[in-house]
Amino acid sequence: MTAPEGWTNPLRDARDKRLPRIAGPSALVIFGVTGDLARKKLMPAVYDLAARGLLPPGFALVGFARRDWADQDFGQVVHDAVKAHSRTPFRQDVWDSLAEGFRFVQGTFDDDKAFDTLAATLADLDRVRGTGGNHAFYLSVPPNAFPSVCQQLARSGLATSSDGSWRRVVIEKPFGHDLQSARALNAVVNEVFPEDAVFRIDHYLGKETVQNILALRFANQLFDPIWNAHYVDHVQITMAEDIGLGGRAGYYDGIGAARDVIQNHLLQLLAFIAMEEPVSFQPSELQAEKVKVLSATRLAQPLDETTARGQYAGGWQGGTQVVGLLEEDGFAHDSTTETYAAITLEVDTRRWAGVPFYLRTGKRLGRRVTEVAVVFKRAPHLPFDSTMTEELGQNALVVRVQPDEGITLRFGSKVPGSGMEVRDVNMDFSYGQAFTESSPEAYERLILDVLLGEPSLFPVNAEVELSWKILDPVIEHWATEGSPDPYPAGTWGPRSADDMMARTSRTWRRP
Amino acid sequence: MTAPEGWTNPLRDARDKRLPRIAGPSALVIFGVTGDLARKKLMPAVYDLAARGLLPPGFALVGFARRDWADQDFGQVVHDAVKAHSRTPFRQDVWDSLAEGFRFVQGTFDDDKAFDTLAATLADLDRVRGTGGNHAFYLSVPPNAFPSVCQQLARSGLATSSDGSWRRVVIEKPFGHDLQSARALNAVVNEVFPEDAVFRIDHYLGKETVQNILALRFANQLFDPIWNAHYVDHVQITMAEDIGLGGRAGYYDGIGAARDVIQNHLLQLLAFIAMEEPVSFQPSELQAEKVKVLSATRLAQPLDETTARGQYAGGWQGGTQVVGLLEEDGFAHDSTTETYAAITLEVDTRRWAGVPFYLRTGKRLGRRVTEVAVVFKRAPHLPFDSTMTEELGQNALVVRVQPDEGITLRFGSKVPGSGMEVRDVNMDFSYGQAFTESSPEAYERLILDVLLGEPSLFPVNAEVELSWKILDPVIEHWATEGSPDPYPAGTWGPRSADDMMARTSRTWRRP
Repeated sequence: MTAPEGWTNPLRDARDKRLPRIAGPSALVIFGVTGDLARKKLMPAVYDLAARGLLPPGFALVGFARRDWADQDFGQVVHDAVKAHSRTPFRQDVWDSLAEGFRFVQGTFDDDKAFDTLAATLADLDRVRGTGGNHAFYLSVPPNAFPSVCQQLARSGLATSSDGSWRRVVIEKPFGHDLQSARALNAVVNEVFPEDAVFRIDHYLGKETVQNILALRFANQLFDPIWNAHYVDHVQITMAEDIGLGGRAGYYDGIGAARDVIQNHLLQLLAFIAMEEPVSFQPSELQAEKVKVLSATRLAQPLDETTARGQYAGGWQGGTQVVGLLEEDGFAHDSTTETYAAITLEVDTRRWAGVPFYLRTGKRLGRRVTEVAVVFKRAPHLPFDSTMTEELGQNALVVRVQPDEGITLRFGSKVPGSGMEVRDVNMDFSYGQAFTESSPEAYERLILDVLLGEPSLFPVNAEVELSWKILDPVIEHWATEGSPDPYPAGTWGPRSADDMMARTSRTWRRP
Repeated sequence: MTAPEGWTNPLRDARDKRLPRIAGPSALVIFGVTGDLARKKLMPAVYDLAARGLLPPGFALVGFARRDWADQDFGQVVHDAVKAHSRTPFRQDVWDSLAEGFRFVQGTFDDDKAFDTLAATLADLDRVRGTGGNHAFYLSVPPNAFPSVCQQLARSGLATSSDGSWRRVVIEKPFGHDLQSARALNAVVNEVFPEDAVFRIDHYLGKETVQNILALRFANQLFDPIWNAHYVDHVQITMAEDIGLGGRAGYYDGIGAARDVIQNHLLQLLAFIAMEEPVSFQPSELQAEKVKVLSATRLAQPLDETTARGQYAGGWQGGTQVVGLLEEDGFAHDSTTETYAAITLEVDTRRWAGVPFYLRTGKRLGRRVTEVAVVFKRAPHLPFDSTMTEELGQNALVVRVQPDEGITLRFGSKVPGSGMEVRDVNMDFSYGQAFTESSPEAYERLILDVLLGEPSLFPVNAEVELSWKILDPVIEHWATEGSPDPYPAGTWGPRSADDMMARTSRTWRRP
């Protein structure tokens, strides 16, 4: 098969860059294919891509796991996952043609024979399915399995190709648990795969609302003039979850909210909000700006005044009584793992000097919401009677990342009636209402980008290391400071997080 | 009665400036009380003010007209008007107490005896109703009747008071038909009433959406930084009506759209959009800024390229076939009265130099809408593939004056999907949704302001004269240029208006 990468459906106008490109011939190998992520996100995303016509006839999906499955068993698992979780309606013809490219390889990560079988399977697929020697290896496995898998891929000759076809590796967070472990992990991966073949998934970057931050900032004349320290008072970046950690102790205990969310999702959001205009949206240009702004980002000091952490206690959530972290299965009864983390960052650039960036995340909070709020200074002078502006807050532009994706602008408007009373109102833009196109799932976009070799939305090694460099001092500081502050489940985090804001006369938004 | 002006209901907190003040004891005399305006707007507004508790017990409404009515007949006419046109529900108790203060005086404007009767009626009301000698004279009559009415009011001693009570006169547009006639008219009025006793009604200024322009601009940090020639490309101010001029020939023929709408409503809207921040919202400070910006406003030249006018021909409107102006009853068959007018203005200030302000108005246009659109320049650079921004227009902030009162912000947003396609979307703020308080009708607000002696929303003489100074050269120019361009009813005006915009590579919005 010699169809070029970015194989084009002849029925569509190849010159129309607005249409998504179609992946070229390729096989996607998922390690850890029996896990939750594979079933709930990856398999449905593969099907959705196929249903949208974005996968070529020469596409194959290979599962690798310890489970003793035949190809048919694997097919049934994918089938069930697709039926349960796909975004697009199930179509038998799409399924039939996709399923012909399914294979399953049974084995453990230290099993030479299993990887030899995998190599034979892929070679066979290249021949019968026409996957063209292009193989993406998706490591949906814990980081401690990365060395084995990478070395096995190298040993079995799967990590490199000599005929112009490509080999890529996809890894999921956590990218280490501090700078040192991240470097070690990157070293392991980069020993086998060159940096431009490594695709690090931060699924937030696959979200339309996050990518739209760039469109909002750089396609418009309205926002850039006020996007700086002259007009912005501070920025709040929030990822709140209502769920707890039942069943996730193995992954979460000893890791905590800061490493789990701030290091990757929230610092990436900060980079999108704070970066300078890239020369273009070419991946290298975009990454250069993100690296630059992360290099300029540092923790506000002193840390005991500019950070806060908490751990959820029992409480009520959505009408249900829930237990605290220390009662969850698998957590040590004296675990000091934080389920809530808030930090204050400063960005040392001409644009942002003096503007605090407040980042917070937590489990078992009031509701599930991710948003970025750019909060503007008050107008320097109000030519109104002071009684007329008592209910006037600060202007804010809020990017609603999820759910209810969109943008909100908060500003002061005259209250109907005599007098000049001014009160905050919201102006809303909603993705759901504005576009008939429904938004692809983040994993659809990201898997397609892996197959296309389009790395824009994947953080590079330098970003990962810079993020740890920013965060490590907080975690070291907290390690010396006893236990996190408890907060009742269903509330908005510990008192200490409110105190942290109050020190600069600010408050958290209740999103 | 000695209750002070701004009489306060003791049940309410007098210190709460957000509550509307209640009018003090007073009588409102309407000349021309049998006309459409009185029935459809003034009488219902008086009732609505009473229903909202904003009129004092010592309030009286006096009608003056040629009609041979008794007080009861007048009461019935008001009753019918209120039932048909009031904003608030009819309440018998409110009506009963209001109606006790109704009087009717029969007479013509040159009839000394009728004005003596009026004086006696008002003196009687002061005694029995407690109107306190405070009298507002609403001249809902053609301007050619102003001299008679004013002189009669002077002769009968009604124009002045010596006991600390007040006398005010309310006049409606047209305030003349050019600078010279406006000066003559103002001279007639000012001979009898000092300028601070003259309230000129421009009902657009009573609209919440217009007043909100000031709140929007001066209570927020978001908009001011981009509210200038660095960021604004141009401004479009539109008042479009779908109705024709059937039955209005007497008023309209020989006047036309520019004098009828641009001279007052649209130039006032321009003043609100373009003025500098006032020291406060005290009337004199606000008027000073409006006068200042109108002084700096001038027609772009040459007029045959920067203006356009039209006259509606027959066509279809809302599914109904309608006749052209020349077929309407009462219009001369060769009338050159324009029913559509568009002009280009420049504001010679540091803030606005180089930004054209396009003003247009017309009858029998596509639909009824009044709006101000501040259209921003394109971003100086777009770091996108050019194919990705083909559907990206210019950012715009649109103040929707009526109907569907609110604000729209148009900006570019990423289209869901792969790639970085950017397309215009709208963000909306709607008065109806944001506030439970329903907006008072413009006439409610303005009549209350007359009774309170609150002149902020009434153009002063200087503004009227400046507006004519701006407009006169257009009308003189058009007078030498033959007939206006015909346009079919139900369309958006003559081709020449589109050509006018095209000369600067711009287009009218289709609101």
